[in-house]
Amino acid sequence: MRLARLLGPDLKQILNEDPEQVRDLLDEIHPEDLADIVGELEPDEAAKLLAQLSAEDAAPIFGRLEEDEQGEIAPLMSPERVAHIASEMAPDDRADFFSVLPVSVSDVILEKLEVVDPEAAEDVREIEKWPETSAGHLMTTAYVRVAPDVAVRTAIAAVRAHAEDHKENVYNVYALDSNERLVGIASLCDLLLASHEQPLGEILRTNVISVKPTDDQEDVARQMARYDLAVVPVVDDKEVILGVITVDDIIDVLTAEQTEDVQKLGAVEPLDVPYFKTSFLSFIRKRGVWLIVLFVEEFFTQTALRYYDPVFEAIKGAAYYVPLLISTGGNSGSQSSTLIIRGLAVGEIKPHDWWRILFREAGMGLVLGLMLGAIGFFRVLMYPEQHTDFALTVALTLVGIVMTGCTIGSMLPLVLKRVGVDPATSSTPFIASLVDVLGIVIFVYAAKLVMANVLQAAGVH
Amino acid sequence: MRLARLLGPDLKQILNEDPEQVRDLLDEIHPEDLADIVGELEPDEAAKLLAQLSAEDAAPIFGRLEEDEQGEIAPLMSPERVAHIASEMAPDDRADFFSVLPVSVSDVILEKLEVVDPEAAEDVREIEKWPETSAGHLMTTAYVRVAPDVAVRTAIAAVRAHAEDHKENVYNVYALDSNERLVGIASLCDLLLASHEQPLGEILRTNVISVKPTDDQEDVARQMARYDLAVVPVVDDKEVILGVITVDDIIDVLTAEQTEDVQKLGAVEPLDVPYFKTSFLSFIRKRGVWLIVLFVEEFFTQTALRYYDPVFEAIKGAAYYVPLLISTGGNSGSQSSTLIIRGLAVGEIKPHDWWRILFREAGMGLVLGLMLGAIGFFRVLMYPEQHTDFALTVALTLVGIVMTGCTIGSMLPLVLKRVGVDPATSSTPFIASLVDVLGIVIFVYAAKLVMANVLQAAGVH
Repeated sequence: MRLARLLGPDLKQILNEDPEQVRDLLDEIHPEDLADIVGELEPDEAAKLLAQLSAEDAAPIFGRLEEDEQGEIAPLMSPERVAHIASEMAPDDRADFFSVLPVSVSDVILEKLEVVDPEAAEDVREIEKWPETSAGHLMTTAYVRVAPDVAVRTAIAAVRAHAEDHKENVYNVYALDSNERLVGIASLCDLLLASHEQPLGEILRTNVISVKPTDDQEDVARQMARYDLAVVPVVDDKEVILGVITVDDIIDVLTAEQTEDVQKLGAVEPLDVPYFKTSFLSFIRKRGVWLIVLFVEEFFTQTALRYYDPVFEAIKGAAYYVPLLISTGGNSGSQSSTLIIRGLAVGEIKPHDWWRILFREAGMGLVLGLMLGAIGFFRVLMYPEQHTDFALTVALTLVGIVMTGCTIGSMLPLVLKRVGVDPATSSTPFIASLVDVLGIVIFVYAAKLVMANVLQAAGVH
Repeated sequence: MRLARLLGPDLKQILNEDPEQVRDLLDEIHPEDLADIVGELEPDEAAKLLAQLSAEDAAPIFGRLEEDEQGEIAPLMSPERVAHIASEMAPDDRADFFSVLPVSVSDVILEKLEVVDPEAAEDVREIEKWPETSAGHLMTTAYVRVAPDVAVRTAIAAVRAHAEDHKENVYNVYALDSNERLVGIASLCDLLLASHEQPLGEILRTNVISVKPTDDQEDVARQMARYDLAVVPVVDDKEVILGVITVDDIIDVLTAEQTEDVQKLGAVEPLDVPYFKTSFLSFIRKRGVWLIVLFVEEFFTQTALRYYDPVFEAIKGAAYYVPLLISTGGNSGSQSSTLIIRGLAVGEIKPHDWWRILFREAGMGLVLGLMLGAIGFFRVLMYPEQHTDFALTVALTLVGIVMTGCTIGSMLPLVLKRVGVDPATSSTPFIASLVDVLGIVIFVYAAKLVMANVLQAAGVH
C-alpha cells in the first residue's frame, strides 16, 4: 500500500501512457508493489495494461492482485489472454484465481487453458477439488521430484531444470518411488553438503513430517510452526505425494483466519475483503443479522423484568441496578469465553478438558464475584436511603452472576466445538445476552432470600 | 502435546530410569516432541535428565521447552552445565532463554558462558539489548557470511562450514563488504544453479528487502508475508548486517500476538503462558483488574438512572427497556471497534483515514438503527398497554444509540492508536460500558421529545 501511495499518481500515469516501461520496472520493483499500483487503477485500465505485457511479465503482477481485483479484471480481457497469464502463474495462485471466478467465466478460461497448458489445467482441477480451507486447496503442485536411487548430481540437475521453469524459491527435493509415494526429502543444504557422486539415498531424511490434503489449514499452520518447517508435503493415505505447502501461504492463512475469529468474536459475519473495500450494503448485511439476533435475544430481559414487576415495584430503585449487575455478568462471561475460544484455536485446550475448566472457572467466578460483591456492597451503602439488606442483595447477586458468567462463558464454546460449530461464532455477545436474562432471575431470587420481609410486606411471594 | 500424552507415562519412566536411551530417541523423535515429554516431568527430574545428556544432545530439547519450564529447570542445574547447554543452542533461542531468567541467575550463567563460548555470550548481549518485541530481539546471529568478490565455490564452502556447526537449515548466503555492510544475497538455489567458478557477484541479488532492528515484530511478519520471504536480514541505518530472522519464529510471533489481541479484546490482561499453566491467582489478578474497572464504569448507569428517576417514574415500564436498549448500543459499538482494531492490526486502516471511517460508520449506524428501530417499534406495540408514543420513543432511542455506538466504537480505537496505546486494550467492553451510560441519556431525551405531554402531566421538565 505504502509504495503505491508514495509513487502514486505519477507512476499510474506513466504506466497508463507507456506500458512498455513496466518491463523495466519489473527488474526494479517487487511485483507485490507493482500489483498494489495496478490494483489502484480502474479495472478497465488495469486490464488494458496487463494485456499489453507478455504473459510471463503479467503473471507475477496479476497473481498478486487481491481476489476481488482479479475477479473484476479477468472478464475484461480475452479468455485466451487470461489463460496465457494463468499458465505462467504459480499453481497455488492459479487455483486460487479460478476459485474466485464465477463458474461460467472460469469454465471458459479453463477450457482455453486446457489448450495452452494442459498440465496447468489438470493442476487447477486437482487443487480445486479440495475444500477451500484445507491443505489440499493450499498446496502447490510445483515441487522438485526425483527417484530415490539417483546420485546427488542428478538431484541437482532436477533442481536446475525446475528453477528454470518456476520463479519461486526451491527448498527441498522430494524422492518418490515408482508409485509416487514419498520416500524421503533432501534440502538444498543437504545437496550442497554432499558430493556430486554420492547416492541421494544416503542423505535422504526419511522421517518426514507431512500433512493430509483434508487437514484444516490452521492445523497445517500449527504443524509447520511447531516443527519449524519452511515447506511441508501433502500426501494421501497411501503416502502418495499430491503437492507441497510453502510457509508464506501459511502466514497469509494465519492472518486471514485470525481476522475471521476476531470479527466473529465481535459479532460481525467475517468480511472477505478489507474494511474499505467492503461495500456499505454488505456491511449492513454482515452486521445487521447479528445485531437483530442479539436484539431479539435481549428482548427477554424486558420480558423478565416485566414478569418480576411486583418485586421491582416493592424495592424502590432496584430496577436501576439491573444494567450494572447484568453487564458485570456479561463481562465475566466474555472473559471466560475469550480465554477458552483462544485456547481451543491454538490447541492448548481440548474439549475433553471440560470438567477441569468447569471446576476452575466456577472457582474463579466465586472469587471474582466476592471481590465485586464487596465493592458493590459498600457502594450501595453510600446512598443514605439504602439499607444493608439491599446492599447484601446486590452483593449476593454479583457472586451468583459472575459465577454464572464464568461457567456459561467457558462451557458454551466447548459445546459449540463438540457439535461442530466454530466456537468463535459470535459467542461472546451471545453469552453476554444469555447471562443478562439469567442475571435478572438471580437478582430476584437473591432479593427473595435477603429481603423476604420487605417483599412480604408488599404482598410479593 | 499429543505425542507426549500418547507415549506418556511409559516413556517418562524409561527416561527417568535410563537416560542413556534419550540418545537413541533423538534420532527417532523430533526434539519438539521430546521437549513436550521433558516438560511434563517435575522440574528436578527434568534437570537430572538433561544433566545426564551431552550438552549437544540436551540443547535442542532444552531450547524447545516453554519459557516457564526453562526458568524452573535452569536453576536446578549447575551454572557451568547450563552455560554448556546454552552454547549449543541456536542464538535466538539462547537470547530468549536468557531474557526468561531473573537477572541474578542470568548474570552468573552469562559469566560462565563467557568462558565456555565468548562469541555466544557476545551474541546474547547483542540480541538482548533490543526491546522484547522488536526485530533485533527476534533475530539470530547465525547466518552464512561471505565476501562479495569470491567465486561461487567459496560461497558453497562457507555454507558447508556453517552447516557443520549449526543444525538449522540454511536458505541464503549474505555478501558483506569490509565494513559488514550487506551488499547482496544469494539463495542456495542460486548457488546450485551457478557453476562453481562463476563470480558470486554475478548471481547476487542486490535489491534486498531488509528490516531495522527497532522494527516491531508484527511489521516484520507483515513484510515477510507480503514478499514471501523465508528469511529477512536485519540491518542498521548504515546497512550493516546485525542478524537474520527466520520465518518459523515469525509464525510463533504471529500466534502469540494474536492471542494477546484476542485476550485484550475480551478484557483480560494477556496471559504469558497457556490457560492450564496460568495460576489461579494470576488469573484473578489479570481478570479482576478489568472487571473492577468496568464495574466502576458501569456504576454510572445506576447514577444516570437515579438522576432521571422522575422520567422513569412518569413512564410506566420504561426502566424495563433500558437493558435492551443500552446493550444494543454496546453490541453495535463492539462491532465497529472490532472492525477498526483488526483493520489497524493488519494495516488495512491508517489513523489518518478517520474521517472516511466516521462518515461510513455514522451512515451504517443510521441504517442499522432504523432497522432495529422498526423491529423495536412493532415489538413494543404488541403489548396492549403500550401506546404509539412509547413505541416511537423506543425506536428513536435505538437509532440514536446505534449511531452513537458505531461512531464511538470506531473512533476510540483510532484515538488510542494516536496516543500510542494498543487499540485492542480492552476497548470493546470499555466502549460498551461508555455507550451504556450515553444510551440512558439518549433514551431520556427521546422521551422528552416524543412524550412531552406525558412528562409534563407528571410534572417532569
